[in-house]
Amino acid sequence: MTRASGAAASPGPKRLIALTGIGQLLTLADGPSGARGGAAQGALGLRENAAVLIADDRIRWVGARDGLEAAVEATRDPEGAGDVMVEVHDCRGRAVLPGLVDSHTHLVWGGDRRDELELRLGGADYEAIFAAGGGILSSVRQTRALSEDDLHRAALARALRMRACGTTTFEIKSGYGLDLETELRQLRVARRLATSDGLRVKTTCLAAHALPAEHRGSADGRARFLAEVCETILPAVVAEGLADYCDVFCDRGAFTPEESRQVLGRARALGLELRLHANELGSTGGARLAAELGAASADHLLYLDDDERAALRDAGVVATLLPGTSLVLGKPYADGRALIEAGVPVAVASDCNPGSCALESLALVLALACYGCRLSPAEAICAATHNAAASLGLAGEVGQIAPGAAADLLILATDDYRDLVYHAGSPLIAAVFQGGRRVA
Amino acid sequence: MTRASGAAASPGPKRLIALTGIGQLLTLADGPSGARGGAAQGALGLRENAAVLIADDRIRWVGARDGLEAAVEATRDPEGAGDVMVEVHDCRGRAVLPGLVDSHTHLVWGGDRRDELELRLGGADYEAIFAAGGGILSSVRQTRALSEDDLHRAALARALRMRACGTTTFEIKSGYGLDLETELRQLRVARRLATSDGLRVKTTCLAAHALPAEHRGSADGRARFLAEVCETILPAVVAEGLADYCDVFCDRGAFTPEESRQVLGRARALGLELRLHANELGSTGGARLAAELGAASADHLLYLDDDERAALRDAGVVATLLPGTSLVLGKPYADGRALIEAGVPVAVASDCNPGSCALESLALVLALACYGCRLSPAEAICAATHNAAASLGLAGEVGQIAPGAAADLLILATDDYRDLVYHAGSPLIAAVFQGGRRVA
Repeated sequence: MTRASGAAASPGPKRLIALTGIGQLLTLADGPSGARGGAAQGALGLRENAAVLIADDRIRWVGARDGLEAAVEATRDPEGAGDVMVEVHDCRGRAVLPGLVDSHTHLVWGGDRRDELELRLGGADYEAIFAAGGGILSSVRQTRALSEDDLHRAALARALRMRACGTTTFEIKSGYGLDLETELRQLRVARRLATSDGLRVKTTCLAAHALPAEHRGSADGRARFLAEVCETILPAVVAEGLADYCDVFCDRGAFTPEESRQVLGRARALGLELRLHANELGSTGGARLAAELGAASADHLLYLDDDERAALRDAGVVATLLPGTSLVLGKPYADGRALIEAGVPVAVASDCNPGSCALESLALVLALACYGCRLSPAEAICAATHNAAASLGLAGEVGQIAPGAAADLLILATDDYRDLVYHAGSPLIAAVFQGGRRVA
Repeated sequence: MTRASGAAASPGPKRLIALTGIGQLLTLADGPSGARGGAAQGALGLRENAAVLIADDRIRWVGARDGLEAAVEATRDPEGAGDVMVEVHDCRGRAVLPGLVDSHTHLVWGGDRRDELELRLGGADYEAIFAAGGGILSSVRQTRALSEDDLHRAALARALRMRACGTTTFEIKSGYGLDLETELRQLRVARRLATSDGLRVKTTCLAAHALPAEHRGSADGRARFLAEVCETILPAVVAEGLADYCDVFCDRGAFTPEESRQVLGRARALGLELRLHANELGSTGGARLAAELGAASADHLLYLDDDERAALRDAGVVATLLPGTSLVLGKPYADGRALIEAGVPVAVASDCNPGSCALESLALVLALACYGCRLSPAEAICAATHNAAASLGLAGEVGQIAPGAAADLLILATDDYRDLVYHAGSPLIAAVFQGGRRVA
């Protein structure tokens, strides 16, 4: 422990933590960091033998070890009385990187679909299960049946496992309600994970995730449901301040680009930003729509041609890859290499959901992005931190280790970040800090 | 704590541990358990609300909770004096299964090949890297350069990470020496992991893993190397008692079936049992050779036809799938479903090695066997416990929870073993017992 003179009273920090002996520091702070897009793909901003000073819940300073004392001294409030202790954490040569940013999850759900997983492994097709009222609709039934407290309990347990694997920022979508009450309930739970449980959360209303059972089988069911989304659900969500984004499942067997445009247009008019499930099951125009509307992110993108990649790049849309879902469903992997080479900013996320991919560890999924989508380890790390943050409007706030950013960071159990790919699945996260506090 | 009267002096046990409140107990003890093969694929031997009594390093008793007191009483030595305390571990409804058996690893190696991983992700082909003197030969150079102590230090760190992920029994191959001294050194380190470090280990001499650099480029190099393996290395390995098995890399670009037959024939004459790397890169006859020789295991098996599956089944050869390697190399997955349906006993192992697959977590790899090779979760668990044990001649000893077996077992952090697949990569191993002691 070293001691900073002065600095107890506001505005000096109450707590100082110094990380020293960092073998590899991945700052992700070398590239441009615009509100979105301009992500420096694979630019890790690597520093060797660096130190980091955390003041309360923020990164205060990053530099060479011999500048640490001066950085501590600079936190001193000349008007303040008393001392602040500096908690020194010696990283013993290990790698430190930003907490991971999972920019596509559905983690508030009821029940589970492990039985369906067994069916699929036995050969049943995901689209067939979905058409038969399983799939998403099964989770809708199970989610509608749970109270807000029960939903919160299940989601929190999941989120804490995810955080133990390195995720400190979560995008969370609704979409297992498909009715007003349950959509609101899911989003309230997502907000509660931030306000009560200290997770960093952005929320997305995905009411147009599937056509609910009560609107199937009638000629005007689709139109009535879309009207309900646009005229009832989205306005209520916005009135309660429950969502940052609106998303639509725009794909074969789900919603058409025209239907998606209707919902997204209404959402934008209500003040929400846009994300889009696109080109997962086929090429029906989702990616083009995301580009046309300037969505923050287009997600999945298994089926994509050169023109669509160029459109995403030109519109500054982040391409969010979800390789866990390809693994679980036995589908092709999105061509991450082609996206990177086309200059599209690439993010990687878990897609954590009860059906098509219940993988919780973004650290594992970023390795799958290397093995399946042909990203380099550096590109995958950038995709799961800096670029994912950019897609959530959090560039500069999370996904990098730089002065002013949130003190969300990971200490690895290895001196080489590439081990996250090389030894994927091993216990390599030695410590997780969120908002300047060690939480795992 | 309950108290067993009597029983301190030999032959009563010194330590008793009772696991109670087990939600799902996977005994893997319902099927036939012959020395090999007769494995009950996917038969988990599931018991609900069961209890397990461990006496010293062995499973003493398995049954319903209300039989526990009588089981403890039965451990009492009528001649002994004093009491033995029973340490009671309440599993609170969680699942318990045998420690995982990793029946194919190369975990004693020097250096690393993370740079090569980046090359491959950038598009370089594994066989091309190998032909250019990279691949295995790079690890040979790095392994030859290390002392036994340095090799041991690296291997132990790796093995302990693997054990934290659930593996309690390891098959370990040599094959990064390709000369007498280094092959012996690798195998001595593998034995030391058992004798000094308490891991359960079977060892395999894989001197015929690749043609070493010093035998390349001369007309009789292959013949001279094979003679060295047969006349020098194998006899020395056997004389020192360092190996249980002999293995050969029988494949395109490695050794032919004729060359493999020569090495394996010599090994058998020296008293070793046989395993075989077969049909990974092409269909060159390895699987047929394994069947012809009655090998304990044929491993990889990406390219396999109906006749070859029938030959393996008829010869009682265990088919060992290594889906981690398919993931890492971007190759097809072995068709595990076809093997199961053909009646071939299937094991799943990590292949943990510095080049083609450095994945350490067999728990992750068994999930890949589901997603990639189309095993059910139950079949994959059976493959990574009971069947893997059978392939190592350890049926009844490990890979099941039954009276007399070693007390190697896992307590999961969930009540449903299928979560190992559903939430693959999450921290789901709550406790690892090896030889009756909690080690993770």
